[in-house]
Amino acid sequence: TQQLLSSPVPRARPYRICNWDRSIRKGLVAESLRELLDKVRATLLMVGAISLVLDEDGTSVETEEFFQTLEEGTVFMVLGSGQTWRAAKVAGYQL
Amino acid sequence: TQQLLSSPVPRARPYRICNWDRSIRKGLVAESLRELLDKVRATLLMVGAISLVLDEDGTSVETEEFFQTLEEGTVFMVLGSGQTWRAAKVAGYQL
Repeated sequence: TQQLLSSPVPRARPYRICNWDRSIRKGLVAESLRELLDKVRATLLMVGAISLVLDEDGTSVETEEFFQTLEEGTVFMVLGSGQTWRAAKVAGYQL
Repeated sequence: TQQLLSSPVPRARPYRICNWDRSIRKGLVAESLRELLDKVRATLLMVGAISLVLDEDGTSVETEEFFQTLEEGTVFMVLGSGQTWRAAKVAGYQL
């Protein structure tokens, strides 16, 4: 139909998610930010508001259109209420 | 039949698995996460719950759909009860 042809169909892509202290790290497949958030809540058993930031630098990912520009395999950190992103310790410089 | 044509048939692909301390490393062929888990249990003689994580970064592989996005030759670490992933020591920086 016209509607199907007019916009590209999003396809499920693999991502990796970790929790705030990076003690949990899982692979998930999703075709949208909304779907990824739903799967994160279900797999990490989180309730309430959660947000996703890029693990590499803490960039907040809030919109579907920015999400769709990210590459397969992008690593997200999941933040619940009161949790904040911190840079990962650099190998060789453990304090 | 139509059903067979509409979704790609999974095919057996090669993977590599290692145990928690990387003292054992084997090649296995499987067409699904379930089949790989069965073969891991049989070849490493592990009983009880086991899980697979990516050897490279400890990402937990829990779903068939994420498993199917992984490339041939992916290296998995097999974790039994109480075992945890640790990063491989980097050559030249052994602590």
